[in-house]
Amino acid sequence: MKVAEIISVGSELLMGQIADTNAQELGSLLPAWGIAHYRRQTVGDNLARLTEALHLALSRSDLVFTIGGLGPTEDDLTRDGIAAAFGVPQAVDEAIAEKLRRLFVQRNIPWVEAIVRQAHVPVGAETLENSNGTAPGLWMERDGKVVIALPGPKNEFGAMLRGPVRERLARFATDGVLVSRVLKVVGMGESLIESQLGELIHCTNPTLAPYAKMGEVHLRLTAHAPAPSAAEALLDPFEAQIRGILGPAIYGGEEDSMEGVVLAMLQAQGQTLGVAESITGGELAQRLTSVPGASTHFRGGIVAYQGLVKAELLKVEALSDPVSAQTACEMAEGALRILHGDWAISTTGNAGPTSDIGGKPVGLCYVAVSGPGGTTVEEHKFRGKRADIRTRVTQAALVALRNRLLSEPLAPLRA
Amino acid sequence: MKVAEIISVGSELLMGQIADTNAQELGSLLPAWGIAHYRRQTVGDNLARLTEALHLALSRSDLVFTIGGLGPTEDDLTRDGIAAAFGVPQAVDEAIAEKLRRLFVQRNIPWVEAIVRQAHVPVGAETLENSNGTAPGLWMERDGKVVIALPGPKNEFGAMLRGPVRERLARFATDGVLVSRVLKVVGMGESLIESQLGELIHCTNPTLAPYAKMGEVHLRLTAHAPAPSAAEALLDPFEAQIRGILGPAIYGGEEDSMEGVVLAMLQAQGQTLGVAESITGGELAQRLTSVPGASTHFRGGIVAYQGLVKAELLKVEALSDPVSAQTACEMAEGALRILHGDWAISTTGNAGPTSDIGGKPVGLCYVAVSGPGGTTVEEHKFRGKRADIRTRVTQAALVALRNRLLSEPLAPLRA
Repeated sequence: MKVAEIISVGSELLMGQIADTNAQELGSLLPAWGIAHYRRQTVGDNLARLTEALHLALSRSDLVFTIGGLGPTEDDLTRDGIAAAFGVPQAVDEAIAEKLRRLFVQRNIPWVEAIVRQAHVPVGAETLENSNGTAPGLWMERDGKVVIALPGPKNEFGAMLRGPVRERLARFATDGVLVSRVLKVVGMGESLIESQLGELIHCTNPTLAPYAKMGEVHLRLTAHAPAPSAAEALLDPFEAQIRGILGPAIYGGEEDSMEGVVLAMLQAQGQTLGVAESITGGELAQRLTSVPGASTHFRGGIVAYQGLVKAELLKVEALSDPVSAQTACEMAEGALRILHGDWAISTTGNAGPTSDIGGKPVGLCYVAVSGPGGTTVEEHKFRGKRADIRTRVTQAALVALRNRLLSEPLAPLRA
Repeated sequence: MKVAEIISVGSELLMGQIADTNAQELGSLLPAWGIAHYRRQTVGDNLARLTEALHLALSRSDLVFTIGGLGPTEDDLTRDGIAAAFGVPQAVDEAIAEKLRRLFVQRNIPWVEAIVRQAHVPVGAETLENSNGTAPGLWMERDGKVVIALPGPKNEFGAMLRGPVRERLARFATDGVLVSRVLKVVGMGESLIESQLGELIHCTNPTLAPYAKMGEVHLRLTAHAPAPSAAEALLDPFEAQIRGILGPAIYGGEEDSMEGVVLAMLQAQGQTLGVAESITGGELAQRLTSVPGASTHFRGGIVAYQGLVKAELLKVEALSDPVSAQTACEMAEGALRILHGDWAISTTGNAGPTSDIGGKPVGLCYVAVSGPGGTTVEEHKFRGKRADIRTRVTQAALVALRNRLLSEPLAPLRA
């Protein structure tokens, strides 16, 4: 399998002013294109270090992608770096220079001579058309190695990657493709999952890799095969085995979210949901309504942040003890009543950052679910920053509802 | 100036499953800590390539940060890589092992022996306390070089970076420091700001760089000086000049958020706020309650997602036309009434992703503010994905309230 390496170019990447989403996108596409990818380098706008990075990448990888540094300013050094790495001069591509001049006239932008830098091409490189911008890409093949230079602006990069670059890369997929799937797991930590999966963790094709996320774990299954269909055929029984072991702890796949899964369950049962939030302050409603079409099964929510709102709207009586199981239950029952849903979930707790609330420490929280089978409540203790605690409580509330929906399927529809 | 290099470890980074926001954060902090930073490497969970990356980084940089690969599973290889790069064995740190065991008992999580991997320490390394997680960081100093290993989970990484790591790095700031400030601007685009600021944009010390964010622009002012106090002395008059030009379009500095600023204004006036949300689905309440202590001036909110909730709770009458100025006004007035605030803001609109709502296109939305001086409403047309549109509407609602608070200061306090 051919091995690719990415070199991201730009001081703004090193300084953290922007996230390197281009390299992320390219990295996510290479496996499906049958190209391996083991290393990435990031350098600033500095010719010596860029040339060094190119030399290193060419010494150990077959395909070297550079991202960025193709613009017209003096900071844009990728053309110079490639010429230096291969020891060749650059020449002006007159067709491209002419196209640039025409474009500037068309758009009525004053011409500055620096623009012509974008028409410089290391001798031996072909240009790749950039349909969304002025700087062409470069494709330089020499001594069995290829350097592919792509511009940094996101829309230019993405269009070139999926257009001319993808086409030209097809002939390098000589050794099969990698196909991945993700299974998302809740209610079990990474190490417990690994111990339950036992030897499956050590399989080499497909492989299985767990990633801990906030309140859940994602398992990535990856198969290597000559063609996508053969890879899928390897993944099917592997996934079935994992599902057999983890059962309903797996809540979905790559495209699924906990909020989407819960809403789909409600839809399947023809039921509706309302929420009452204190500690999560709207985050629970926000996640549920992030799902397109949520309005069919999500009625709405009450953010009962002050006791006044808890008392007046939700008829909570345990006002002296806001961080308690009883308050959580009363909030869920109040939300069920005033929002006319089949189900309601509530959250209360202390998100910090600093002090106790009525003797209740930061991180202590309660999540209640009220539905056809009554009201249930869970206590949790979470650690972390205010925002993290709120996100974990939101997740716990959705998981609690999912558990109730799993254990009480198809309650009778309301009139 | 000491030179740092970052090595980000994790196949999920190469595969593009997650963005490398940790390296971004570290990269943004190093200049202010007086440390240069020219290169970053990214490798997967592979011992040979991680060790190679460490050797390379140690050959050309003074400080080498590794991010990730400190967890308990077999693909967490950073400890092994550091031991291999320095040619030292590892030993179990009994104090850490004991702490891990206690933690598992406390949290009632089944113990698996793999966890103890997190207590392995390359001989010669010190451990760095991880207040938000189980894996300690590592600080390994040898032959004038330092390797600093930090865990990948965001909250653990951030806390260690700003705590123990920052403290220990102070002695490496030998060649002056860069100090930055941020001014946050609303209601003006990047190019309008640039044209108003004129020559200030081209200053070299301090420098001024604008960054467009969702619904606002951030100006970063950066001064280079021998010591922080001298840098601050350069920044003070520069900031004053900028403030003189942009006036109240500047709503705050680096630590400020629009929601925090609005709540502080309410606090200063002794007033309270409630919200009624349709299109933003809880995001507005979520942002307001993300501010610690929000409960003093934020009463709560109604997420009126279905017409039923708009009608029953908020007494909205314009139900046949949910995406309208009238609905927005009725929602704000309803929220003012039932939440007993001095002010209420509301949002309604079409966030997409696809279809019109009653003839109203995706992106059309209304934001209303109801307060002592009556109810005002704004129409906006936003473009982008569902999540982006919701975020822009949330921001517009907060900005609308700020504008009202600026123009109607100190209304009489309610009884």
